[in-house]
Amino acid sequence: MPPTERRPVIGFLTDFGLDGAAATCRAVMLSVCPDAQIVDISHTVPKYGIRDGAFILRSALPWFPIGVHVGVVDPGVGTARRPIAIRAARGDVLIGPDNGLLPPAADALGGISEARELTNRALWLPATTSTFHGRDIFSPVAGHLAAEAAFEAVGTPIPTADLVRLKQAVARVEKGAITTEVVYVDSFGNARLAGGESDLRRAFGAMAGGTSLTVTIEDRSDAVLDATYAPSFGHVGRGDHVVYVDSSGNLAIATNQGDVATAMGLRSGSVVHLSRPTERG
Amino acid sequence: MPPTERRPVIGFLTDFGLDGAAATCRAVMLSVCPDAQIVDISHTVPKYGIRDGAFILRSALPWFPIGVHVGVVDPGVGTARRPIAIRAARGDVLIGPDNGLLPPAADALGGISEARELTNRALWLPATTSTFHGRDIFSPVAGHLAAEAAFEAVGTPIPTADLVRLKQAVARVEKGAITTEVVYVDSFGNARLAGGESDLRRAFGAMAGGTSLTVTIEDRSDAVLDATYAPSFGHVGRGDHVVYVDSSGNLAIATNQGDVATAMGLRSGSVVHLSRPTERG
Amino acid sequence: MPPTERRPVIGFLTDFGLDGAAATCRAVMLSVCPDAQIVDISHTVPKYGIRDGAFILRSALPWFPIGVHVGVVDPGVGTARRPIAIRAARGDVLIGPDNGLLPPAADALGGISEARELTNRALWLPATTSTFHGRDIFSPVAGHLAAEAAFEAVGTPIPTADLVRLKQAVARVEKGAITTEVVYVDSFGNARLAGGESDLRRAFGAMAGGTSLTVTIEDRSDAVLDATYAPSFGHVGRGDHVVYVDSSGNLAIATNQGDVATAMGLRSGSVVHLSRPTERG
Repeated sequence: MPPTERRPVIGFLTDFGLDGAAATCRAVMLSVCPDAQIVDISHTVPKYGIRDGAFILRSALPWFPIGVHVGVVDPGVGTARRPIAIRAARGDVLIGPDNGLLPPAADALGGISEARELTNRALWLPATTSTFHGRDIFSPVAGHLAAEAAFEAVGTPIPTADLVRLKQAVARVEKGAITTEVVYVDSFGNARLAGGESDLRRAFGAMAGGTSLTVTIEDRSDAVLDATYAPSFGHVGRGDHVVYVDSSGNLAIATNQGDVATAMGLRSGSVVHLSRPTERG
Repeated sequence: MPPTERRPVIGFLTDFGLDGAAATCRAVMLSVCPDAQIVDISHTVPKYGIRDGAFILRSALPWFPIGVHVGVVDPGVGTARRPIAIRAARGDVLIGPDNGLLPPAADALGGISEARELTNRALWLPATTSTFHGRDIFSPVAGHLAAEAAFEAVGTPIPTADLVRLKQAVARVEKGAITTEVVYVDSFGNARLAGGESDLRRAFGAMAGGTSLTVTIEDRSDAVLDATYAPSFGHVGRGDHVVYVDSSGNLAIATNQGDVATAMGLRSGSVVHLSRPTERG
Repeated sequence: MPPTERRPVIGFLTDFGLDGAAATCRAVMLSVCPDAQIVDISHTVPKYGIRDGAFILRSALPWFPIGVHVGVVDPGVGTARRPIAIRAARGDVLIGPDNGLLPPAADALGGISEARELTNRALWLPATTSTFHGRDIFSPVAGHLAAEAAFEAVGTPIPTADLVRLKQAVARVEKGAITTEVVYVDSFGNARLAGGESDLRRAFGAMAGGTSLTVTIEDRSDAVLDATYAPSFGHVGRGDHVVYVDSSGNLAIATNQGDVATAMGLRSGSVVHLSRPTERG
């Protein structure tokens, strides 16, 4: 192996949990491609949480070396939903079910260049089951692509416009207010929101760190947070609340050294309003 | 390193949890064998769950490249229970305590060829403790085997008939009914059962997908599930129940996008009956 | 790559949880240093648990190959707390925030040789955020050090006496009694204590395995354990309690096949007394 040759990277995300299924997939990948450098992204995606898995994939993969990445959150395993591979503009290949999990990450990797259905059984395990396509189809195909196979070998082309897409959450901005949606609750309990810094500017103008903001939660008149716009958690007192721009550029809400999502009952899909204190009530 | 040389694979399963003990073992393995490709199987086996660990090992290891595999679920650490190595017919070596954890996996790897007690202290860490044989004995022995040591070097032979064996659960089949046992609850809450597709055929004859089955739980007259025999979860409605043949060939019960084990109080050892609706009460 | 060359090892500990942030860091490390052998130590350190993280690092790292190790438990991310690198006498480099997390591990690796603030932005990611220095600063610096960069390149020297240090728990020993503190509760619920075997000897003289000890918990007169001094868990009956010397040389309390910390409400910082039954009450 010449010193400049890199081991092919396989990023790997599932909702399989920690009890052996993901390891079985890793074993299959390594059986096909012994040089693979498998990087586990997460295997504790909430069960059947396609939207959560999509958020994690699109947040993590842009930081990865170009590689073959497998995402399996697949409540439809063994039904008519298609197993697919997507080639992203950056050069990565994403493998998994056609249920909306993969396209946001492909977008974050420069956009979708090409998609194919995994129809070439020569790249699958010899025997397949109806409940474990992660092991039987996605992992061996990823191993073959990491090893040497051409993208075209995985199967027949799919029009990229036909891929299943999740409905994307967006921030609605007015003068003095943003209405948006929780798109992900991270392991700290921080609520990541649709929208970014430019939406803040459009709603509130130029805002210095330390500016007060009020967060209310739709359908919960009791749920009001007095928050501070700040660059990070430690800029407010312990237990106090911040609105910040997260490390992916999303708006987000956190409690310094606390779990705001649990405290406020926030979860993916919760609708929240941001306003200035003077403009409320 | 010639391009055809593979890094030696070490599969690794424990009930150590996620807080540093497994990492310490990985570090010892890599100190002895820097080329090792360690594949973590699970470290969240229920504490002291020898039976659960054995299920995971035997389900996962057949998909691994031939390697040296370490399993540590070891409530008897530091007592008279023996540290052992088992060579399986496929060529793998399994390392761990002699408490029943390893033999099912060895069976799944072609059967037990040979067993030895780990008596050669030259392959252990120089100092050993009474509570962490994973670090002090099992990991360095695995590292040495992965690196170059001969199986015979680990210690003295043990008659394979002397190895501790778990009592194996079996399905009892009559015409129109199967009485069996939960052998594992996976991270989705699916209940894996003793017995396979052939038992279904013996009990119920040839059965089309979509056939109704009734699941009752022993000693819980209230616990009755109307289930459908189907190849996978998505073949029934969300929240509906399936009896299926899992990815290892076991019978299993699941709720589509639900957790049947939690809902029904199923756990390893729970006795369940499968019957046709017309043949019940 | 000559066969004798080892992949540079990067040990990695955070409180990021399992949902993608640690994977993003691994990806950055591998982007900078594709040969890195990353060994995850733990990513489930209790949130903001600097003391817990420090315990795990100092317990695990002495078993690692010499390497570059990253620890991120960092409630002050994005504030004035300094990002640092510490060189330990054994040759390892520790990278993380200057909040007390790293020095105990450095001590366990032979002591602190040198410390520097990470001021050289050429080794960071080109753009940095205020909430994810694990990704933006610590991981790329670790990658550069693992690849080729000199320790001196990371930034400006810091007097080692200026590093933030945690207050260290100590055992107070009298004749017939030890008053000490829980320094860590492991994943089994075993309570690791300040103090070691020599403290036991000073308090109780030479003690055979099987000697009875009484454990009481300060401010909880109801919390009394009748325990046995033993080398390991299985030396007492299931559900019985042991005082033992753990695999790092710490005193510790456990219940055989039970979780003594949950049962007794023990957590880091809990004060416990050890005495002989005859010397109590």
